[in-house]
Amino acid sequence: MKAANTSSHAPLTNQRIYVVSPSGPVVPAEKLDTAVVNLQALGFKTTLDRGAKTVNGRFAGTDLQRLQALTRALKQPADIVMAARGGYGMTRLLPSIDWRAVADSGKVFVGHSDFTAFNLALLATTGAVSYTGPVAAADFGVPNVNDLTADLFAETMRGELEILSFESEKADAFDGRGALWGGNLAMLVSLLGTPFFPKIRGGILFVEDVNEHPYRVERLLLQLAQSGVLGRQKALVLGSFTGYRLAAHDQGFDIPDVIAHIRKTVGIPVIPGLPYGHTAVKATLPIGAKVGLATEQGMAHLVIHEH
Amino acid sequence: MKAANTSSHAPLTNQRIYVVSPSGPVVPAEKLDTAVVNLQALGFKTTLDRGAKTVNGRFAGTDLQRLQALTRALKQPADIVMAARGGYGMTRLLPSIDWRAVADSGKVFVGHSDFTAFNLALLATTGAVSYTGPVAAADFGVPNVNDLTADLFAETMRGELEILSFESEKADAFDGRGALWGGNLAMLVSLLGTPFFPKIRGGILFVEDVNEHPYRVERLLLQLAQSGVLGRQKALVLGSFTGYRLAAHDQGFDIPDVIAHIRKTVGIPVIPGLPYGHTAVKATLPIGAKVGLATEQGMAHLVIHEH
Repeated sequence: MKAANTSSHAPLTNQRIYVVSPSGPVVPAEKLDTAVVNLQALGFKTTLDRGAKTVNGRFAGTDLQRLQALTRALKQPADIVMAARGGYGMTRLLPSIDWRAVADSGKVFVGHSDFTAFNLALLATTGAVSYTGPVAAADFGVPNVNDLTADLFAETMRGELEILSFESEKADAFDGRGALWGGNLAMLVSLLGTPFFPKIRGGILFVEDVNEHPYRVERLLLQLAQSGVLGRQKALVLGSFTGYRLAAHDQGFDIPDVIAHIRKTVGIPVIPGLPYGHTAVKATLPIGAKVGLATEQGMAHLVIHEH
Repeated sequence: MKAANTSSHAPLTNQRIYVVSPSGPVVPAEKLDTAVVNLQALGFKTTLDRGAKTVNGRFAGTDLQRLQALTRALKQPADIVMAARGGYGMTRLLPSIDWRAVADSGKVFVGHSDFTAFNLALLATTGAVSYTGPVAAADFGVPNVNDLTADLFAETMRGELEILSFESEKADAFDGRGALWGGNLAMLVSLLGTPFFPKIRGGILFVEDVNEHPYRVERLLLQLAQSGVLGRQKALVLGSFTGYRLAAHDQGFDIPDVIAHIRKTVGIPVIPGLPYGHTAVKATLPIGAKVGLATEQGMAHLVIHEH
């Protein structure tokens, strides 16, 4: 992977981060103190929301507490609002969030996994762009922060990342532009049929997942295909699929078989290899922004800012 | 559970069964020979489709082979067509099945789990009623067939079952009529957004699941709620949720918590306790038929045939 940098873009933000916990609880909570140190070392003055360390069973507070944390995040001075972690819980909040207020806040929202529901609901209801990428506890609350993940995050936040290039040996030929959208596949599909699912035509859809069995990944992708969503996109970009374990009855049926079936049944270019997923290395990607994508000689180039 | 019987209804079928394998393979295949013996002992002359024992990786044949088996099932003389088992595979076939021909065949289709996609797609595309209940290999291909499951199946096929009564200690008060529909929750939700999801208003929706973590069950139910489906039903009936194992980070968050959250957020009566699921005891239920449902004193009564 290679990131083409330039300083030709003005900083997008005041480079201050506010951390909220809208989904699962951070355990141990001290991970967030480590995250503050690591994010500050990266040049981002970082503040924790007062509910960021709250634990209420398998949630970071009651639904009301987590909603109130999101409301506080809109009103504090830092330009970047980062989720502490994923887990489960955003789904419960979707109907209660004031999406217009979120969009109007002008904040730059970054999260991952369960946060995909936030990214996509914001896009669906307002058209506003937000980001998927590292989260405070899981990616920065660790002793050894992944350098590439950190650099890609910092460069993206500073508007310096123009092109993200990655190896994509088995990519279909593609050269086009469209709205980049997607995130965690299960979360994305969990919005189908609801008002929180973006209606994107001619987009570039990217997906990843963790702990989803290959046959379930295929079922999710077929749901997107049979609902007409996949066919309306210009390309399907695949991040990583990790954390599952095949059983004997799978008879070796694995992600490559899923990709082969999707290629056979859906007539859109498939581009694997996006450095994005439940992995240490993850790009920070805008959700809802117009991007370019081109493949050549075993590489794919995602053009995030164009001159 | 108590089943009220009567012989006042004419037999619905010629009481012959044809077994097909539209999803996962039967391993070992001999289970189907056992099933034939057990179904015949129950009074059903039973024939295996010639592809019923086919194994192709994690499928009972290629997609084409399984489609051809379904086509053969429409043309053979037995009135009842029973799936050999669930697994995964029906999703792949949905767009290729001639649903009009399925409905016009007049056959009585019975299956479970993955077969929910067949039941619901048939209902969505044609309005035809089919059945969810036991399957040949898993329920009848075993040494000790569950008597209640077998009796309920036989009585339902013969049109003799009028009322299915079951214990439902925590049922909300309900007395009403509507189209009975549902099945496996994950399969049902996997159709949302596609042409295979039935548009039912004022229905009685029943769901069960296996190996789905409680937080995922909640996410599936919230998807139904946020898509407007749950709110349009008269009642939500719960079968069993089995096979999952809580992890430490669940902090005890279990199915009762899910039910409590759904009750709080969706204003329809919830009736637990339906003897249906990935369990030895399972009722045979019509999908798409108008039924009555009433609760009283810790019991629920599902009125399948009325005088």
